[in-house]
Amino acid sequence: MNSAPIGIFDSGIGGLTVLRETAKLLPDEDIIYLGDTARVPYGSKSRETVIRYSFEDANFLVKHGIKLLVVACNTATGYALGELKKRLPIPVVGVIEPGAKNAVKTTKTKRIGIIGTEGTIKSNSYVNEIMRLAGREAITITEHGEKRFDRYFEIRTGAFVIFTKACPLFVPMAEEGWTDNEVTRLTVETYLRGIKDEGVDVLLLGCTHYPLLEDAIGRFMGKATTLIDSASATAVEVEKVLAEKGLLSDKKGEAMKKIFVTDSPERFLNVGRRFLGGNLKGAELVSLGN
Amino acid sequence: MNSAPIGIFDSGIGGLTVLRETAKLLPDEDIIYLGDTARVPYGSKSRETVIRYSFEDANFLVKHGIKLLVVACNTATGYALGELKKRLPIPVVGVIEPGAKNAVKTTKTKRIGIIGTEGTIKSNSYVNEIMRLAGREAITITEHGEKRFDRYFEIRTGAFVIFTKACPLFVPMAEEGWTDNEVTRLTVETYLRGIKDEGVDVLLLGCTHYPLLEDAIGRFMGKATTLIDSASATAVEVEKVLAEKGLLSDKKGEAMKKIFVTDSPERFLNVGRRFLGGNLKGAELVSLGN
Repeated sequence: MNSAPIGIFDSGIGGLTVLRETAKLLPDEDIIYLGDTARVPYGSKSRETVIRYSFEDANFLVKHGIKLLVVACNTATGYALGELKKRLPIPVVGVIEPGAKNAVKTTKTKRIGIIGTEGTIKSNSYVNEIMRLAGREAITITEHGEKRFDRYFEIRTGAFVIFTKACPLFVPMAEEGWTDNEVTRLTVETYLRGIKDEGVDVLLLGCTHYPLLEDAIGRFMGKATTLIDSASATAVEVEKVLAEKGLLSDKKGEAMKKIFVTDSPERFLNVGRRFLGGNLKGAELVSLGN
Repeated sequence: MNSAPIGIFDSGIGGLTVLRETAKLLPDEDIIYLGDTARVPYGSKSRETVIRYSFEDANFLVKHGIKLLVVACNTATGYALGELKKRLPIPVVGVIEPGAKNAVKTTKTKRIGIIGTEGTIKSNSYVNEIMRLAGREAITITEHGEKRFDRYFEIRTGAFVIFTKACPLFVPMAEEGWTDNEVTRLTVETYLRGIKDEGVDVLLLGCTHYPLLEDAIGRFMGKATTLIDSASATAVEVEKVLAEKGLLSDKKGEAMKKIFVTDSPERFLNVGRRFLGGNLKGAELVSLGN
């Protein structure tokens, strides 16, 4: 079992940032990645649909004999992680708990910003996770700010104040390769001005695409705000779980990386190179559920 | 048969502009609309996948007894129209031929710009249609300009010079409701500067979402450029085909409009109101192919 691969799935290409961080931290582990590019994005789809897709993705990887599953998609983690943990025979790691844990550990002012897709923000999954870590009984919640800008809301959770904001244009911008031009700068400012004005000291990038916009986001937020990306936090969690279960690989030498996609590998490879640097060699087309 | 409804499908919400124009021109016709919102967007998916989805969409509408099918999605028209026409027992109208015809009729300088999603532009479907209308034997094609900006290319077709450009951020921007702010203005400028510099007198909006950005696009292109949206052109074509086949409705009074979607009606209705004005009352969730 120790020599079995780690399985990672995402709705598309964003999860490659999780693959990159996991491969960096655990160079001896084989990794199989599935990008459900035929049905991307999950972020604007309903809970029921995302759960159905997540099980199709997971079952595909389980059939390939993985020893641990990483749900490298925030929307899928938010909607489907609980069900996956319940029904799969292997450990399952999502991207939400590691990021939330890191945010709670890092903040000094206890003012945290969270950004993500519409689905991730609506699901409140990061907020719920932070509330769980901070202790549920100490919580008061205030929602306001709807007047200030769309879908902006503020939630006070005991000692923590959490500001969340959906940024739906960040994903298509990252995929277009507009990671640091004038349009990106203005979009970052439009989406994040409210959160910045609240003086958060931690901004959680709750979407695996967002590390590509890290420079533009970091420059706008300023040095007083630490950006936390859930990709690195998740890799650390994967290592921890594998160690606990005695499942770390005992192989040495070059590990296998295998990528499957459900739609045209060509576009995936073009865009994916921005996520993995030059190390993306090929991807195999597979068909899922339809 | 005359009292049977017209069927319209799109990958999502953009085709509502075609529904709007068709209902305006043919107020006595019943219309059934299907938005495949669980699998939107088609624009970044492969030919094979788009053809498969298109047949699932079409078959759903045919089962509801439609007398004519409108493929209100540029990507689906580009990839699947030929197959649909061959294999369906009813007339099928796409969005490409009407828009192309209108562009050819309108241009005086014979310099035409075409914008659309990556899939539409790559498929060259508008270019091929204009070449067909202009006479294939008179055509010379020159591709250049890759150095000037991404995926920009120029194709000389006989007397016509056609400039095409994929604008993948326009769809998420229209759906976000950013139809005329500073980000939109800059994005329009970034995408269209090259086409504008070529002095086209017609710009074909080759995506059903783009009419929502018409003000921003029109202002940047200037008064010397006529914008052609394929939605209105398609409605005119629907009327023509129904008249030719003797299929125009003989009913009077309020016609039925029925909308089906494959994912959460809630978001569809929120965004859809921007496309149809206040006239979007409800949508029913259905499941297709998976």
